Formats: sequence, C-alpha cells, structure tokens
Amino acid sequence: MDWPTEIAAAAARIAPHVQRTPVMDSAVLWDHPVALKLEHLQHTGSFKARGAFNTLLSLPVPAAGVVAASGGNHGAAVAYAASRLGHPARIFVPELAGPAKIALIDRCGADLTVVPGDYSNALEAARQLEAETGALQIHAYDAPATVAGQGTLLREWEEQGLEADTLLIAVGGGGLIAGALAWSRGARRIVAVEPDTAPTLHAALEAGHPVDVAVSGVAANALGARRIGDICLGLAQDHLAASVRVSDAAILEAQRTLWHSHRLLLEPAGATALAALRSGAYVPAPGERVAVLLCGANPAPDPLP
Amino acid sequence: MDWPTEIAAAAARIAPHVQRTPVMDSAVLWDHPVALKLEHLQHTGSFKARGAFNTLLSLPVPAAGVVAASGGNHGAAVAYAASRLGHPARIFVPELAGPAKIALIDRCGADLTVVPGDYSNALEAARQLEAETGALQIHAYDAPATVAGQGTLLREWEEQGLEADTLLIAVGGGGLIAGALAWSRGARRIVAVEPDTAPTLHAALEAGHPVDVAVSGVAANALGARRIGDICLGLAQDHLAASVRVSDAAILEAQRTLWHSHRLLLEPAGATALAALRSGAYVPAPGERVAVLLCGANPAPDPLP
Repeated sequence: MDWPTEIAAAAARIAPHVQRTPVMDSAVLWDHPVALKLEHLQHTGSFKARGAFNTLLSLPVPAAGVVAASGGNHGAAVAYAASRLGHPARIFVPELAGPAKIALIDRCGADLTVVPGDYSNALEAARQLEAETGALQIHAYDAPATVAGQGTLLREWEEQGLEADTLLIAVGGGGLIAGALAWSRGARRIVAVEPDTAPTLHAALEAGHPVDVAVSGVAANALGARRIGDICLGLAQDHLAASVRVSDAAILEAQRTLWHSHRLLLEPAGATALAALRSGAYVPAPGERVAVLLCGANPAPDPLP
Repeated sequence: MDWPTEIAAAAARIAPHVQRTPVMDSAVLWDHPVALKLEHLQHTGSFKARGAFNTLLSLPVPAAGVVAASGGNHGAAVAYAASRLGHPARIFVPELAGPAKIALIDRCGADLTVVPGDYSNALEAARQLEAETGALQIHAYDAPATVAGQGTLLREWEEQGLEADTLLIAVGGGGLIAGALAWSRGARRIVAVEPDTAPTLHAALEAGHPVDVAVSGVAANALGARRIGDICLGLAQDHLAASVRVSDAAILEAQRTLWHSHRLLLEPAGATALAALRSGAYVPAPGERVAVLLCGANPAPDPLP
C-alpha cells in the first residue's frame, strides 16, 4: 500500500468536514517543553472522525447505510459523519461504554443498540447486521480507509510546524498509531503507550502475532480493543521505536494534570500518552524533543450533559 | 499613555511566564466560519495571568508582597504569578465566587480570605490591607499595568494570523477589552458583550460616566464588577464599535455549544462573547469576518476537583 499517497488523498477528501485541531507548546507538564496536538477537540471529541469521513467518502455506501461496533468514540464519529453526509447509521455499543458515551452517540443521530459484554461482542453483532442487510461495515481501526484517515493527523501536525524527534501516541486497536506510522515510516520516533490493563500491541509484539488480551481499567471503553489490528501490527513491526505501558493511576494523574495546568478536559484514554512521560514509563534522552498526541475528550460523567 | 509601546514591553516581560494560547477556526458554531482564541487555556484558566505577571514584573514589589480583591479568576492569577515569582500574596474573595474558584485560588498558594457580599466588599478589604501593610495592590482591571498585560492578548492573536474584521469580547470590569482597544485603536471593530444582569459598560456609555449597576446572573463571579473601570470607559468612548447585551439563557446555550461542538469547557463568562453571535444580539454584515475571544475556563462545579 502506498500510504503517503493514500493519506494525502484522505486529507483532501475530509478537509471540508473535519476540524483542523490546534497545537500548543506546554512548559509546565514536564521538565522540558512538550508539544501538544489538541486532537481531542476534533468533532465528536476524538480523532475517529477522520477515519469515519474518509471511509464514507472513499467507499460506495449502500442504501442500507453504515454499521459500526464501538466502545463509544468510533460510534459517535461514524454516526456524526453518516448524519452529515446523509446516510443511515446503525451503531452497536458494548455496555461498558457507559452512559456518557452512549448519550453522545445518541445525540449524533444514530440508530443505537447497546450490547451486553465488551467490544468483541458488539463487533459480532455489527458483522451479523452487515451480513443480513448489506450495510457498509466501518471497522474502528483495522481497515485501510480508517488508517489512512487517522494518518491525516500527523500530516496536519507537520503542516503546523511540528519539530519533535519523538511522538507519544496511545494505542487501543491501533488505528491512530498505524496512521502515524504509515505517514512517518521511521522519519520520527513513534512510541506506543498502552494501559497495563489493555496491552494489546505490547502482547502482540512479544508473541509476533495478534493475541487476545484481557481488558479492563479506566481507559477500557476507548483503548479496550481485545486484539491489535493486523495493519497496525505490521507497521509497528517495521517502524515502531518503543512500546511502553502505564498504570491506571498514572493515566488518571495525567488527566488531572491536563485539566489543572491547562484547562484541557480529556477522558482517561486521551491522557494516556502523556502518562508515559509524567510517570517515567518513557524516559527521553537529554535534548530529545517530545510531542504528545491528545486524542479523546469524552469523559464520564459528562460535565455538561 | 503610549499604549502600543507599553503593550509590546509587557509582551516581552511576560513571555517566559504565560501560555501562548492556541487559535482555531470553527465552521460549526455559526452560519459562517468564526475565528476563536482559546485564551481560557491560559495558566489559571483565564487571561488574567497576563495582567498579573505584567504588574509584578513592572512595579516594585514590597516585602509585604501583593494583595488583590477578586471574584476568582484575577485572584487565582495573582496568586499563581506571585508564587512563581516568589512573592507572598493575600487574596480577598467575595462569597459569591463559589467553592470551585475558591479552591482554585487556594491551590495557587495564596493566603485567602473569603469576604461576605460582592466584589466591592472584597475590594474594600484589600484596600484596607494595602493601607495597613504597604502591600502592592493589584487591581483586577483598572490599572495601566493590568490593561497593558491584557493588551498582549490581541497582539499575540495578530502574530498568529488573525484576519477578522470584528472581535467579540466579554466585559466585566473592562480590563480585557481595554487592552484590546488600546492595542487596536480602531483598526478592527471591537464589540463589547455583557450579560443583561451585569451591564457595567453599557450603563456607563449611556450615562457618559461610570455608574454603579446591580449585578447578578450566571457569569456574576467573573463579569460582576459593579462599575466599569475609568481606563476602559475612556478607550471605549474613543474606539468601541458596539456594546451589546445577552441573556443568561444565551450565555448558558453558548457554554453548552462550545462543549458539545468542540469539547471546549468554559465557565459561563468565558462563553459570553459567543452568546452575542449565536443569540443574534450582534448581527454581522454580510461578509464580515468575526472572531470570538474565549476567556475563562473555571466552571462550577469543577469536573476534576
């Protein structure tokens, strides 16, 4: 796959529909300045809108519309993109997504089904509907159009003057980091950050192939894919600089610090990449310029429901 | 006063200490694109840090330290700046500031006194301490060093490529808009937006001189100065394009919309300028390019106390 070409095409395609999210430098989050990308300010509160729009604008959408399984953020993004583009959307959400994310998807105008269990159960329900109705399945992370859409993020950040040597990026199913790896192809150091309680990529890198992991913890409804995507694993095996894990306590500390120091309100998953820096799970070399991708802003409870 | 020179000097002085806040364009807040300055991401959650640092860095600070009266945001900024620069700070807060703002000031390391009544009572207590101890009084809005500090905001926004014809800015005591008027001096249309429940500038412009107004409503702890500052009124009489008022309902609608559309969490006062656009209190001419200054992010209750 010629990823740079795919990602550039995706960027042109989705530009009228997504938010160009701001960047800022922080001098107070760590010992040295840190570059931040405020992608949690994206429409529907996460980067997922990029992949959703790219999929809907690059693949033929049948009359049956689209279907997706999601822990919350992907579902909201698919519902929003489908509604903006005039397609019906059916979203399957695992129970563990919680009321704040379920309400968010509902507001985006989708036909919503809450499925008992975790993400894999919701995915099964979505696949069944796809088989029955011919609706277009939009995978949350392991599809080329999704990855190319998420890849527009690093491309945009570079257009905004990113100067970092190293990027810290949170990993769930791996769509976001796959997009960054596909765009960068080793030009910058990319570090994967996962919760101890959902180490999907870490386990796959150790095993040499995707494996199922147990999923729990404070970021589970966003980073709780049980198995890494094949596209992500392939790109990670070729280009990833490091894979680190952080505790739930470190994630909550990073979330609090972003609010107290910068009035950036994120969900725990969205603060996970910063947790690696603050907790020492990732220790940059002297002089290494570090950037942190903030990726999700749908906390529970919702402060203004 | 040579305001442009004062403001440029203030910008150089405070640069190492304040956050350069990001800007973004929104296509979903109004019929046409709107430029936003995310000044609510400033240290301590409001623009007030600019004036506080400029005052402490440009005036001699006595051993008794500094004293300020504040509905919350100014007090937090003075406490933060004093603590960073190694001066003791004594802050008088009116009861109506509420527990979230009182806790914020407390976290910033100040010696805090809660005063029954409104802002004017807190100001009286601060003046008494100033007379007794010789501590440096830092006025929340009606002092040249404060106004010059706030003026660095529009200067910074212009460096970031601001292209708007018209800026909407919320007004309480008038320090923020005074800074913008002092920097712009008519080069751009500046529109003052006040709550119906705290129309300090509006009343003064009608009377031709500052008058006391009754203060209440959802933004009272930030925009609830009872009387406009003399510096602001003079600049407004020379350079203000329009003065409009908005209802509390419009302010809360704007606050909710910023959260739902962009995951920007502000306090009501911080969303007041946007309320003028969304409610129709200010109606731009066809083709008029509008920018909105988002200025305060300390909501109650605090979502992550």
